[in-house]
Amino acid sequence: MRDFITFDESIEVLNSINIVEKSTQKLFLTNALGRVLAEDIIALENSPEFPTSGMDGYAFKFEDINSELKIIEKNPAGYVVEKEVVSKTCIKTFTGALMPKGSDTLVPIENVEVLEDRIKIVKSVPKGFAVRDVGENYKKDEVLIKKGTIIGFSEVGVLASLNIPQIKVYSKPIIAVASTGSEILDLGVEKTNDSQIRSSNHLTLEALFTQCGAEVIQNGPVDDDIENITNFFETSLKKADIVVTTGGVSVGDYDFVQDVIKDKLKAKVLFHGVFVKPGMHILVAIKDEKIIIALPGFAYSSTVCAILYVLPLIYRLKNSNEKLPIVKAKINQDLNNPTNKKIFTACNVEYKNGEYIIDFVGKKSGTSAILTNMLGSPALLIQEENNLLKSGDLVDIILLNSFK
Amino acid sequence: MRDFITFDESIEVLNSINIVEKSTQKLFLTNALGRVLAEDIIALENSPEFPTSGMDGYAFKFEDINSELKIIEKNPAGYVVEKEVVSKTCIKTFTGALMPKGSDTLVPIENVEVLEDRIKIVKSVPKGFAVRDVGENYKKDEVLIKKGTIIGFSEVGVLASLNIPQIKVYSKPIIAVASTGSEILDLGVEKTNDSQIRSSNHLTLEALFTQCGAEVIQNGPVDDDIENITNFFETSLKKADIVVTTGGVSVGDYDFVQDVIKDKLKAKVLFHGVFVKPGMHILVAIKDEKIIIALPGFAYSSTVCAILYVLPLIYRLKNSNEKLPIVKAKINQDLNNPTNKKIFTACNVEYKNGEYIIDFVGKKSGTSAILTNMLGSPALLIQEENNLLKSGDLVDIILLNSFK
Repeated sequence: MRDFITFDESIEVLNSINIVEKSTQKLFLTNALGRVLAEDIIALENSPEFPTSGMDGYAFKFEDINSELKIIEKNPAGYVVEKEVVSKTCIKTFTGALMPKGSDTLVPIENVEVLEDRIKIVKSVPKGFAVRDVGENYKKDEVLIKKGTIIGFSEVGVLASLNIPQIKVYSKPIIAVASTGSEILDLGVEKTNDSQIRSSNHLTLEALFTQCGAEVIQNGPVDDDIENITNFFETSLKKADIVVTTGGVSVGDYDFVQDVIKDKLKAKVLFHGVFVKPGMHILVAIKDEKIIIALPGFAYSSTVCAILYVLPLIYRLKNSNEKLPIVKAKINQDLNNPTNKKIFTACNVEYKNGEYIIDFVGKKSGTSAILTNMLGSPALLIQEENNLLKSGDLVDIILLNSFK
Repeated sequence: MRDFITFDESIEVLNSINIVEKSTQKLFLTNALGRVLAEDIIALENSPEFPTSGMDGYAFKFEDINSELKIIEKNPAGYVVEKEVVSKTCIKTFTGALMPKGSDTLVPIENVEVLEDRIKIVKSVPKGFAVRDVGENYKKDEVLIKKGTIIGFSEVGVLASLNIPQIKVYSKPIIAVASTGSEILDLGVEKTNDSQIRSSNHLTLEALFTQCGAEVIQNGPVDDDIENITNFFETSLKKADIVVTTGGVSVGDYDFVQDVIKDKLKAKVLFHGVFVKPGMHILVAIKDEKIIIALPGFAYSSTVCAILYVLPLIYRLKNSNEKLPIVKAKINQDLNNPTNKKIFTACNVEYKNGEYIIDFVGKKSGTSAILTNMLGSPALLIQEENNLLKSGDLVDIILLNSFK
């Protein structure tokens, strides 16, 4: 008999697994979208470097605010005017241009009357108006983007403004995936009897892990015998950070995956069996610093357990400080969990009037084989052991659309 | 003088733009991740097709529940047993195997005592226990995935289980992007005077639009004169659904983009000037059923306006029913907007104790040039015209990390 542990214990064990830091690589900015920065980005100079005009207007000395000013030059962005603003003069200065020497304030064009080559300020401005000071955006030596940041549009923009075309990012976590089961057939393979079904787990997991930023080595369905499964593990453990399988971890006569992990690989089993629904037969093991996650075979079970057990490892391997997106939601019906298992139930989620609301319309209960329950706008309700939820309660849910 | 319109009016005009439906293409499942389904996916058969075992156990006739049963065969998943369960017999049947002929109930292995080739049921089960009925997952002709659905891990899994390796998706919206401004230099180009800065807008927008599912034709900084800008538009309008520029839409002497759109292209201007901050000089026009969005030149302004005005068009071109991710958040300080503009202010957002909370720590105010305000864990606070927010108020924010 195996030693089952609680869900919280299993997560503690998972979090205590030692993660070998990934190597880094250099990527051009737009290729680095979604990747994790492996270095601090530090400002090499002030921004702006010089006082800069924030509007279209006339640069002048504030002490002349009540005088007529002679326009002595035009100062478009991208050029540097030679002339200097002296008493009773101004230079027409455009957005983004450097403030001309001698000037300290900009009066917007809509605040002046132009009289041939002179202006009269008809609407006053305070000293320093519309002048962007040196270092207003950021200062020299400031850490602008921290190591561990996921590169998005604003990071790309800031890096471009720093004239940095390539950055150092962490290499992607590599995950080898295979499904097992004597009844499963790969796509396109002809059925030879009514008992066969299509293998979908291997592709569900590839999609999930890919969307979360991993590189997946797809092995598809592996022939369900000791030799082929052993061969898959031995090959994959050399290439991948995590090896994920589905099927073959229950107590049946044909559950070869667990036999291989325990007897052939002699991997260190961290746990095999968790008081969780779905996925109670999950097996997690370590072999040569690589992580083995052997998921149950049913589609819903393997997908839920992949979210709960594999994604946190991907986040750690990525160095991204990500967490599963858990929010509070209002439940619209009573729901009883009289068992000693933590239960994860598929539900529909909607954000409405400032709160997340869940219901179970169209969701089928009673089996772990149904992946269709995760279609639509899905979330996973987290329900504690021996727990009765009442309609209107605030519950914890995992938002699943964020993995799309 | 231009006719400014309110922000809400501008969005109404935007939403009334006629969208030409994108063509479709076929993609293999894992290449279709994040893409939008262009056909309904209908179940061609029941799932399961036959009554199927949901556990490892013994298949028998329920009427025999109190009898000793002779084990006459083993029935692993993936095979079809020839033998039939008759009175006082059972067949050892594994998870995922078809229920043998003659049987109606499965008793799990942990509920029986095995006596050589016989079992005795020591813990009873109800009739039909652990049998997955025909069509339990879904029924023949059921619409499983609707046209317009974004393909995620669960859709990939369900499609695989249906033996569908390729699906029809909408082609990506195509967006041509360019930045303008006499002061901006592309990455790597040597500076020739102190007034020059790096063009970042074109890359910020490429990243943003790419992450939202568009295909971007990057044109980088375009030389800031009538001829080059005209040439960019004429070329891009032939290839793209939307043409997006930054800079050159203000009232200055060097704002060539607006001149080109109005005088050279003779495009139909829907609006030029909105009571919004940042981005009041935004110009939206139509030319030959293509959409032109001319954004202001400042980094923060162009990025915010791209989110507000371009993303909704991308969503419509994608056919994805997406909306900007607006949620309620608690603000931690008073904030006054005494103007007749709707204001979008960068803030930090955190989800804590069941609610979104925003603050402005480290955010710099006063200019539209600062893209660094959108780093970190950003959101955009939406503040109505002439509106005073008090600390503790619930406000609307746009979550920006969802575009990463």
